[in-house]
Amino acid sequence: MSAPSDLSSKLDEASAAYEEFASRGLALDITRGKPAPEQLDLAADLLTAVNGDDFRSPGGVDTRNYGGLDGLIELREIFAPLLKVPADQLLAGGNASLTFMTQALTFALMHGTAVDDRPWGQGPHKLLCPVPGYDRHFTLAESLGFELLTIPMDDEGPIISEAQRLAEDPAVKGMWLVPMYSNPTGITVTEARARELAAMPTAAPDFTLLWDNAYAVHHLREDHPDNLDILSLCAEAGHPERAWVFASTSKITHAGAGVSFFAGGPATVDWMRANLGKVAIGPDKINQLRHVRFFSDSAGVEVHMRKHAEIVAPKFDAVLKALEDGLGAEELAQWTSPDGGYFITLTTMEGISDRVVKLAGEAGVKLTPAGATHPYGLDPNNNIIRIAPTMPTLDEVELAAQGLVACVRLASYEKLLAG
Amino acid sequence: MSAPSDLSSKLDEASAAYEEFASRGLALDITRGKPAPEQLDLAADLLTAVNGDDFRSPGGVDTRNYGGLDGLIELREIFAPLLKVPADQLLAGGNASLTFMTQALTFALMHGTAVDDRPWGQGPHKLLCPVPGYDRHFTLAESLGFELLTIPMDDEGPIISEAQRLAEDPAVKGMWLVPMYSNPTGITVTEARARELAAMPTAAPDFTLLWDNAYAVHHLREDHPDNLDILSLCAEAGHPERAWVFASTSKITHAGAGVSFFAGGPATVDWMRANLGKVAIGPDKINQLRHVRFFSDSAGVEVHMRKHAEIVAPKFDAVLKALEDGLGAEELAQWTSPDGGYFITLTTMEGISDRVVKLAGEAGVKLTPAGATHPYGLDPNNNIIRIAPTMPTLDEVELAAQGLVACVRLASYEKLLAG
Repeated sequence: MSAPSDLSSKLDEASAAYEEFASRGLALDITRGKPAPEQLDLAADLLTAVNGDDFRSPGGVDTRNYGGLDGLIELREIFAPLLKVPADQLLAGGNASLTFMTQALTFALMHGTAVDDRPWGQGPHKLLCPVPGYDRHFTLAESLGFELLTIPMDDEGPIISEAQRLAEDPAVKGMWLVPMYSNPTGITVTEARARELAAMPTAAPDFTLLWDNAYAVHHLREDHPDNLDILSLCAEAGHPERAWVFASTSKITHAGAGVSFFAGGPATVDWMRANLGKVAIGPDKINQLRHVRFFSDSAGVEVHMRKHAEIVAPKFDAVLKALEDGLGAEELAQWTSPDGGYFITLTTMEGISDRVVKLAGEAGVKLTPAGATHPYGLDPNNNIIRIAPTMPTLDEVELAAQGLVACVRLASYEKLLAG
Repeated sequence: MSAPSDLSSKLDEASAAYEEFASRGLALDITRGKPAPEQLDLAADLLTAVNGDDFRSPGGVDTRNYGGLDGLIELREIFAPLLKVPADQLLAGGNASLTFMTQALTFALMHGTAVDDRPWGQGPHKLLCPVPGYDRHFTLAESLGFELLTIPMDDEGPIISEAQRLAEDPAVKGMWLVPMYSNPTGITVTEARARELAAMPTAAPDFTLLWDNAYAVHHLREDHPDNLDILSLCAEAGHPERAWVFASTSKITHAGAGVSFFAGGPATVDWMRANLGKVAIGPDKINQLRHVRFFSDSAGVEVHMRKHAEIVAPKFDAVLKALEDGLGAEELAQWTSPDGGYFITLTTMEGISDRVVKLAGEAGVKLTPAGATHPYGLDPNNNIIRIAPTMPTLDEVELAAQGLVACVRLASYEKLLAG
């Protein structure tokens, strides 16, 4: 690229810029995909939507008492069209879709699935993990004894040829996937790629797409991709039970006090119900009724999400502008530009993302640890950084992005000069 | 006992009384331990205790966002003295202690315990089940692959000699127990018996008391037994990690929308935290804050429980009076007379409880299926009936108890005449 003397002066500039940033003594944090307080304020009225005089669901259920394993039907009817699943194949649960994921995987390990009653846990069991991906998916699966196999992604989703090759092993039981505004790249699986995933031959008869639709309605732009009807795509491909759909309102209403969802093929939902009935009495129906009243209908959710976008989109734009201004001209890195979700992925030169994270930490910008986006925390190219711009204020996000740019510039010129 | 002709006329009388009752065409249900609506009303103010302007815990936590795996410390401090556990060894969770039970047992099956890291699931695993006991305990454990071994109880708790004999098998990993106002007998484990359970030699180094303190504060009488400090008793006996304590507010505030608790020895709580951190982000802290504000302190819980007793105790008394009036003179059955909890156990003559349940169902009184109080639904003596008097109105409870008495009288004289 440039001559050594040019690089040397670039490094000096980058180093000076970094030192200037670090000298400000800031304390910024763009590590986790948490909603900002202003986003949580949007659902303030939900908190008092059920009171001691008015606690019955539209269908007449006393939400304060036991029972109702499926969750309130009125809540399922609001979210079913948004998730593109039939309401009678949608269950509503507690405050975390991670619980549904844990339960479904544990049931499969202990009892097999709706398709094959041989328990996954009786032999070796592996999951495909498109990378970069969501650290909690990997941690959960590892804790349940799955071996995690990484597969690459492109802009349309996981690379099918690689998935198919690995799925020739009957121990490969499924694949994690955040199909819409993927954590952390923000890419959305295309319908064509989803059809391939639905149809893909696999050695395990109950190969399962762990379809974590965490950002199904989390659009940031007027123009955005459509949610996919993965259950129908799977059914059309002859695998009606292949997808397990997960979602929650954690980033719609209140993180940690929302409601979660599970959907699947008809037999899978029966299987889930039968297994859940042995370990659970029922979800918090009062909180489900709060959600029913707060949203009224599916359109109410969409209106609500546009208010989120008004808060979140400027933060995404601030990061993208800082990256373009600071790194674009010299092409020192690449980054995704999502239409929704909670994350931007920055791809640095190979071998320096850990250095960038370290520099940033020392300069007062906390970043997700390098490697967190990969199974076992191992990013083989050491070049992926997840940016989570939602939680800080817009001013803080702008500052943090400037700091991040300074770190990438410094680490990049260090590498170029060394290499 | 009586001469055949006496018995024959008794049977005629019993039959006529039963037919008279059945002819009323009632529809009564004393099957499940659900709180009555009036009990749920007691916690009405809890529902609006957190609103959009006032959502921070006393310690300053924004309860609307992610995090806080242990649960709110202020809630744990309210319930720790009531459960006789240290607050820093008490975790507060979601809406069901059954979830904590499932999680703890699943972690032990997959990863071993704080005492022994050999996964229980790697070999045969069995649990001791004092009978009669709680059907959901049995169903849960069976679904997790445990073999269930019944052991008898007396008025002070499980029979130690039998427990100890069975625990010579290293596959015996623990024992279910509802120590206070046991489901369904209502008996409370004495301190002497608890000390024996704490000290009992077992082949499994991590033999665990599954101490489900579901009715820890559910007293019905002024005079009542004290809660036991089982963690200290276990520590004094040299087994500081032996007890896992479970509890919830399901029958304190709102069934299905309460908060749950887990406590254990210091290493066990660390073990639980570490494992939970891989499958959960944190409980619904907003609901926990509602509970903190509603109760204020431990005394607030006790005051609240006296209001429950005012509603529940007359229903227990109505059942006890009907049993005494209808069955006492002829000693046709025995029953427990609990000082708290949700259940009365009726012990009929051997071999007729299924007949009583069937007769009652046909006469409009729904009873818990015979056998439900035993593992695998098998009551070998066919003589145990669980009575759950809380949910119906007092009038309905009185009627149901009269109907039950009529059924027991009829089935008893049928048996006496046949035998």
